[in-house]
Amino acid sequence: MKLHVYNYLTRQKEPFKPLERGQVTMYTCGPTVYDHPHLGHAKTYVAMDVIVRYLRYLGNQVRYVQNITDVGHILDTGEDRILKGARRERSEPMEVVETYTRSYFEDMDALGVVRPNISPRASGHIPEQIEWIKMLLEKGYAYETPTGDVYFSVEQFPEYGKLSGQKVEEQEAGARVTIREEKRHPADFALWKRAEPEHILRWPSPWGWGYPGWHIECTAMATKYLGETFDIHGGGLDNIFPHNECEIAQAEAATGQSFARYWLLTGSLTVDGVKMGKSLGNFLTIKDALNLYTPEAIRFFILSSHYRSPVDFRRDAVLAAERGVERLHNTVRMLRKRMEDAMPSGTADLSYIAEIDPHRDAFIEAMNDDFNTPQAIAALFDLNKEVNSLLTADQPLGRGTLSAIDGLYRDLGGKVLGIIPDDLTQNVGGELVTGLIEIILDIRQRYRDAKDWEEADRLRHQLAQIGIEVDDRPEGPTWHVEHRGG
Amino acid sequence: MKLHVYNYLTRQKEPFKPLERGQVTMYTCGPTVYDHPHLGHAKTYVAMDVIVRYLRYLGNQVRYVQNITDVGHILDTGEDRILKGARRERSEPMEVVETYTRSYFEDMDALGVVRPNISPRASGHIPEQIEWIKMLLEKGYAYETPTGDVYFSVEQFPEYGKLSGQKVEEQEAGARVTIREEKRHPADFALWKRAEPEHILRWPSPWGWGYPGWHIECTAMATKYLGETFDIHGGGLDNIFPHNECEIAQAEAATGQSFARYWLLTGSLTVDGVKMGKSLGNFLTIKDALNLYTPEAIRFFILSSHYRSPVDFRRDAVLAAERGVERLHNTVRMLRKRMEDAMPSGTADLSYIAEIDPHRDAFIEAMNDDFNTPQAIAALFDLNKEVNSLLTADQPLGRGTLSAIDGLYRDLGGKVLGIIPDDLTQNVGGELVTGLIEIILDIRQRYRDAKDWEEADRLRHQLAQIGIEVDDRPEGPTWHVEHRGG
Repeated sequence: MKLHVYNYLTRQKEPFKPLERGQVTMYTCGPTVYDHPHLGHAKTYVAMDVIVRYLRYLGNQVRYVQNITDVGHILDTGEDRILKGARRERSEPMEVVETYTRSYFEDMDALGVVRPNISPRASGHIPEQIEWIKMLLEKGYAYETPTGDVYFSVEQFPEYGKLSGQKVEEQEAGARVTIREEKRHPADFALWKRAEPEHILRWPSPWGWGYPGWHIECTAMATKYLGETFDIHGGGLDNIFPHNECEIAQAEAATGQSFARYWLLTGSLTVDGVKMGKSLGNFLTIKDALNLYTPEAIRFFILSSHYRSPVDFRRDAVLAAERGVERLHNTVRMLRKRMEDAMPSGTADLSYIAEIDPHRDAFIEAMNDDFNTPQAIAALFDLNKEVNSLLTADQPLGRGTLSAIDGLYRDLGGKVLGIIPDDLTQNVGGELVTGLIEIILDIRQRYRDAKDWEEADRLRHQLAQIGIEVDDRPEGPTWHVEHRGG
Repeated sequence: MKLHVYNYLTRQKEPFKPLERGQVTMYTCGPTVYDHPHLGHAKTYVAMDVIVRYLRYLGNQVRYVQNITDVGHILDTGEDRILKGARRERSEPMEVVETYTRSYFEDMDALGVVRPNISPRASGHIPEQIEWIKMLLEKGYAYETPTGDVYFSVEQFPEYGKLSGQKVEEQEAGARVTIREEKRHPADFALWKRAEPEHILRWPSPWGWGYPGWHIECTAMATKYLGETFDIHGGGLDNIFPHNECEIAQAEAATGQSFARYWLLTGSLTVDGVKMGKSLGNFLTIKDALNLYTPEAIRFFILSSHYRSPVDFRRDAVLAAERGVERLHNTVRMLRKRMEDAMPSGTADLSYIAEIDPHRDAFIEAMNDDFNTPQAIAALFDLNKEVNSLLTADQPLGRGTLSAIDGLYRDLGGKVLGIIPDDLTQNVGGELVTGLIEIILDIRQRYRDAKDWEEADRLRHQLAQIGIEVDDRPEGPTWHVEHRGG
């Protein structure tokens, strides 16, 4: 089966065909940078990351754009999130933006989320947004109020609601929508807000000084870098309404072309069964989580659920994920050690490869079914079981065979899922650590050769005290670093 | 003596007094992000970094703004640098910008250059630049050509040339200035350039679609975040004309206020005596240099010359810097080791402190004299000599005394110069490496106690093979990592 994706626009699984063969254009709504990113961001962006990685693994060139919202994200209270952050920290809004944009990329880098090709900022695309608003006004989809705001008129765009299934009529009666006098319809949304001089984030426009609404930035930036119609729009399901719905309305009203062709949206994240909230005491930033767990464990945990499903972040579940990752890493370490020691042999032994290949097929089968990572991970563990038996069975294995197996881990666990680093020793200080441990294991071997078990055990104990666990195996000792956070 | 700085505007040393006591506003022209940063960038930004660090050490709150030029930097050939980079790599200009902005910050982070509080991008401030151009047109300092470009008229601003000493009249005769027909005076410079649809980097403006000239971005961004008049403008001396001169002309013509109050400009960098050039084969990126030398050695080397002086990057000079840094690090390692072992004693021994304090004074005296880092480094080495004698003399030292000395290193070598990391073991893999080496040194000590010199030497040799040099001292062995690049 070729790749199928669940498209929120049609509410069904469809074969995935990019506009241009081998070239995928993809946009995901990025964070509003007014605070450190939390676990909800980790869930969305790790899930999207694996989608991008897999599309590339299939041979596509992916142009991945993800914005940074540094202006215009208005809260229900009418406050701008960035200005709120700046007030809290008593600093210039752009300093707040700088701090948290950096924090965001630090966390994503730590989680192994591959950087987008372009990370455009909302404040860096004011003229583009103004052009869009002008177009919408010209075509009669927007109106200016006497107070200098500009709104999108949802009644002019009959397809409004087509992504989320929300009906304009229902919203009219909706209790949660505050009816503001200047709007023609309660569901109309702001394209431009007038701002008085005391408002620090403001720009000149045909409608006076002000700032753009939140939704218009994504329409402007996605189309600027990907074209009027592009392949995939990703993001969190919680933004499907109103944000994603508004993006579509703005884009399609102005251009008459369809906007994103496939909408891939991720389920949300709860902590211990409830929505994360600062007042609830269950709020975890990514930095908090990285102090407690390894990046691979966090990724593995997130990927153990399907990206469209919600996940519940519980300590025991993440610890289980950590053990799962460690099992994979241990096998790969053993495999790579064997490769070093193995006799060079040009080609892989085809009978072993025949046992291994079905696992790659199962992995691809799972991923082709709307990026079913839980099933793909299951395939990886089936492979791991097989490889463990191969390695512990007392039979000679040529380097060609071993390196074919290693290649499989590097592709599936490394390139696609991002849970098996290319260098498993790098995590713990690289070559130097390996070199030092080898000196110590060498001394220990001399004690053992001299049957001085007491001294040999003392060394093992000393290593354990600093977190190095030695595992004596028939083929010689191996070691790994105990994750003390776990 | 209080801090004095050499102000290029007055060509003399002046006492430094910020507009608001204890608050310094500072701007430095940042890189054009179309390629990996080179050693010239390292020289400018490390020098500026130490100025910012020292101002903070003196207790000032510094708001440091440094732009990213991602549009509008036109070469003599009339080509935009970013577009040139994009053509070379066959990618979207904003992908090029993304790649090299990231590369720039990676290198600066590696060199320990503290991040600016705000790093605004030129492409993110198009409306601001348009507002400036409108002001200059309204006040008669600029004119629009029939082809839709806007130029600044240098003849309207009699002070043009006041920073660089270049005279408008002399330029008229200048052979190197291409006289373009549409300019009223050959020294007039572009504020806005018209761009045809095939030009990818363009925005709408009152003068049609186009893009801003290079100089206007710095005027717009500096004043946006620091106010019309601010304290310090930094940068490389090679940008004094025309770039810095144009910034002043634009700002002061439009606002009638003085722009930057102090101009602090750095000397240039040559490699093996000649200007760096890709065709000359002496072009070194920062990444190249970091493969060969430690970040501290590169900083130390740059700071061994005064920031206004040119420096010549030669391998032997950088290796000498590396040895210099290593001498400081060795003493600090020894000092910190002694601190761990020392008897706790509440207060510092005043007689030692009396010997140490003059070195701090000498350091501050040097830095107050226009940031004279070569002399400040000399003061640090005088301190180091003193500390070495203290540590090797066979006298007891209380923890209070040792930690007062350590505090001095942390302030002067760490916070201000950035050449002594707070954690000297972190460089080489952190706690784990330290723990492993201690196990090995412990075994070696047992061999020595048993007078088994052969085995003890074998261990020393094994450590040396992986780059750990053991140094036996009367107070016990110390170790350091040999920099193999050096």
